[in-house]
Amino acid sequence: METCSFKEISGGVTAARGYVSHAISCGIKKPTATRLDLALVFSTEPTTSAGVFTTNRVRAACVRVSREHMRRGDVRAIIANSGNANACTGEAGLEVARTECRLVAQELGILPREVAVCSTGVIGLPMPMMRIEPRIPELCRGLAAGKGHDVASAIITSDTREKEVAVSFEVEGKEVRIGSCCKGAGMISPCMATMICMVCTDAAVDRMALRKLLRAGVEKSFNRITIDGDMSTNDTCLLLANGASGVELAPGHPGWDTFCEALQYVLMKQARHIVKDGERVTKYVTVRVKGAPDRAEAKRVAEGVAKSSLVKSSWNGGDPNWGRIIHAVGYAGRRVHEEKVDIDIAGLPACRAGVQADTPSDDLRARVQAPEFEVLIDLHLGRAEYTVYTTDLSPEYVDFNRSEYAYWNQAKQDGLTR
Amino acid sequence: METCSFKEISGGVTAARGYVSHAISCGIKKPTATRLDLALVFSTEPTTSAGVFTTNRVRAACVRVSREHMRRGDVRAIIANSGNANACTGEAGLEVARTECRLVAQELGILPREVAVCSTGVIGLPMPMMRIEPRIPELCRGLAAGKGHDVASAIITSDTREKEVAVSFEVEGKEVRIGSCCKGAGMISPCMATMICMVCTDAAVDRMALRKLLRAGVEKSFNRITIDGDMSTNDTCLLLANGASGVELAPGHPGWDTFCEALQYVLMKQARHIVKDGERVTKYVTVRVKGAPDRAEAKRVAEGVAKSSLVKSSWNGGDPNWGRIIHAVGYAGRRVHEEKVDIDIAGLPACRAGVQADTPSDDLRARVQAPEFEVLIDLHLGRAEYTVYTTDLSPEYVDFNRSEYAYWNQAKQDGLTR
Repeated sequence: METCSFKEISGGVTAARGYVSHAISCGIKKPTATRLDLALVFSTEPTTSAGVFTTNRVRAACVRVSREHMRRGDVRAIIANSGNANACTGEAGLEVARTECRLVAQELGILPREVAVCSTGVIGLPMPMMRIEPRIPELCRGLAAGKGHDVASAIITSDTREKEVAVSFEVEGKEVRIGSCCKGAGMISPCMATMICMVCTDAAVDRMALRKLLRAGVEKSFNRITIDGDMSTNDTCLLLANGASGVELAPGHPGWDTFCEALQYVLMKQARHIVKDGERVTKYVTVRVKGAPDRAEAKRVAEGVAKSSLVKSSWNGGDPNWGRIIHAVGYAGRRVHEEKVDIDIAGLPACRAGVQADTPSDDLRARVQAPEFEVLIDLHLGRAEYTVYTTDLSPEYVDFNRSEYAYWNQAKQDGLTR
Repeated sequence: METCSFKEISGGVTAARGYVSHAISCGIKKPTATRLDLALVFSTEPTTSAGVFTTNRVRAACVRVSREHMRRGDVRAIIANSGNANACTGEAGLEVARTECRLVAQELGILPREVAVCSTGVIGLPMPMMRIEPRIPELCRGLAAGKGHDVASAIITSDTREKEVAVSFEVEGKEVRIGSCCKGAGMISPCMATMICMVCTDAAVDRMALRKLLRAGVEKSFNRITIDGDMSTNDTCLLLANGASGVELAPGHPGWDTFCEALQYVLMKQARHIVKDGERVTKYVTVRVKGAPDRAEAKRVAEGVAKSSLVKSSWNGGDPNWGRIIHAVGYAGRRVHEEKVDIDIAGLPACRAGVQADTPSDDLRARVQAPEFEVLIDLHLGRAEYTVYTTDLSPEYVDFNRSEYAYWNQAKQDGLTR
């Protein structure tokens, strides 16, 4: 095994060579807004590409179209907007997504199926195509290197900050880069989250290997996170590889393991960014289940604890409430034996063999004040493990999500639905 | 089919003949408290009995002991406390539950297995048996008719009001009564809720018929409610029948159908009471799924919508947000076809064939301001149906559940754990 030898670099989604981008403000969300809300990323070279999408049975129009276009595995442009999810918008929504791809392709001299489309925002509101369509030529003409940060800005919604991760490593004297940006914030749950993640590398990678790698990577990162247990209609993670580094990678190749590690690092770090920037979130909690009889049971228990409103409320209060954790272990698991369950909170024993451990509760409480801690649950029934990354639930989250109505109504009055 | 011919009466859990009760204040929760927290219900006649308990793999000591005692089906006394759940208390907790039954049995001249025990309150804290044990003789000596309301008071925790339902009907000139009390408030989810429900009738009913009836009744009432999606360790529903009315009932008997209807009415009304009095709840929402390909899919979809934090937050804000509802339909269901989904909110079309319906959103919004409304989801895939009764999620719920730590710590300082 190679040692991990990549390093973080700046540059976001266009950090790798051969990628250009542009982002503009169309007023998709508010007619008078000046905030960036439409972005384009383009590889100047042909690519191989892979995508992973929401498993929600209700899928946004952009997800449907992007899946279709991803089938060939040669997508080299991604158009993305925030402010409207283009979900539950019927045939008209599909037409919008297809038109976006067609217009971008025309401008760039590529095929429509070489364009993927991502949208994020409110569900069920028709897309304001009259605001988007006339701006697409301008969007394409502005493409340039070094503007990845604008893409990161244009795709966020209730996120409080841009999410960019890029890395670089050397393979036989040549530098390979991976750049990425993503957005998260609400409706975050496996599998996957209300998220868009774009990853662009300048390695050349066979499309089948790329697909396999992305699927495995998402499984260990974005599919392990939950903020509110609500799986979105729009989740999309896209990976483009254009070979601009002059390095071709494949399983068995000297640089392959480093590439895999570096990509995994990027995905995991972005997943972590999403959780830490969850809507009105104050804690980052790792829920690790071990000693499970099988992986499915470990997963059920970890997700059960990570999704429990009562457990999450207690974390918000800085309360080391192991009683609520074990109650969730008990209803989420199918084979749990209460008298075998150990729970550690932030490294201290909280529960041993199903009853309270000796740790002074003030010590536990002190640890749970930290913005980040681990809950380790040992079922003592086998060797399977599963880890989920999650957050607390705050009164502010609920308050924040009480109403989109005013926005919705305003959007209609402003004519933002055509 | 008979027409429904029962009427509501007063009297709570001891409304039926042959039941006596008493409740006292032991300071289980706070040493100085004067609030009733220990109750006893007793049938002066031998009974048949049935019980339904939590399916959580982590079960309170009282649930384990009561299940054991219910096996013979002749329980005639129920001792219940609030303030401590006697859950995750290990062997010591089991010993407490068994001792409670033994002491009550001694005082009343019955067998320990004729006593059931219920506890509700905090998980993981040892029971303050030193406060309970010396008071049991007094609890038993105070038994009298007409004091059912005190039992209803003694078992509630974060409930804001007592929950009593009693009915009466005539069978061939003789009056049969069913009385009940219950508690709910938090950790409410199928199957079942953090609830205790005691139902006492003066009909004589065969124990096998009684069991079947209770199971079916709970399935349609308490197993259909969810407040926070968190299934408790202590859920218990007990049904006692003592024959004091002189009426013996069995399937096929003239009064049987009325009895079944009356019992169902009692259980459903109590389930409704629990939901309406959920912690910091402002809405009572019926989620009805129809047109499902099978019952399991209908159930998945109904529970998915009823448990979605985002959907529940929007109800709290009086927001008729069908987009969030359909997103939950999509992730909860396995066979949903988005383009077939219709959603009505409070009787008005909100979504048709997966896209927004024509109903003006102000009209929808006006309906969702009501404290009670129905969400009807038609999947148009078959004939199966399922209904769940639920609530909104409020910032106040989260705030209320942020910390039990202060209470916990105080309890220890006050010596309330022995």
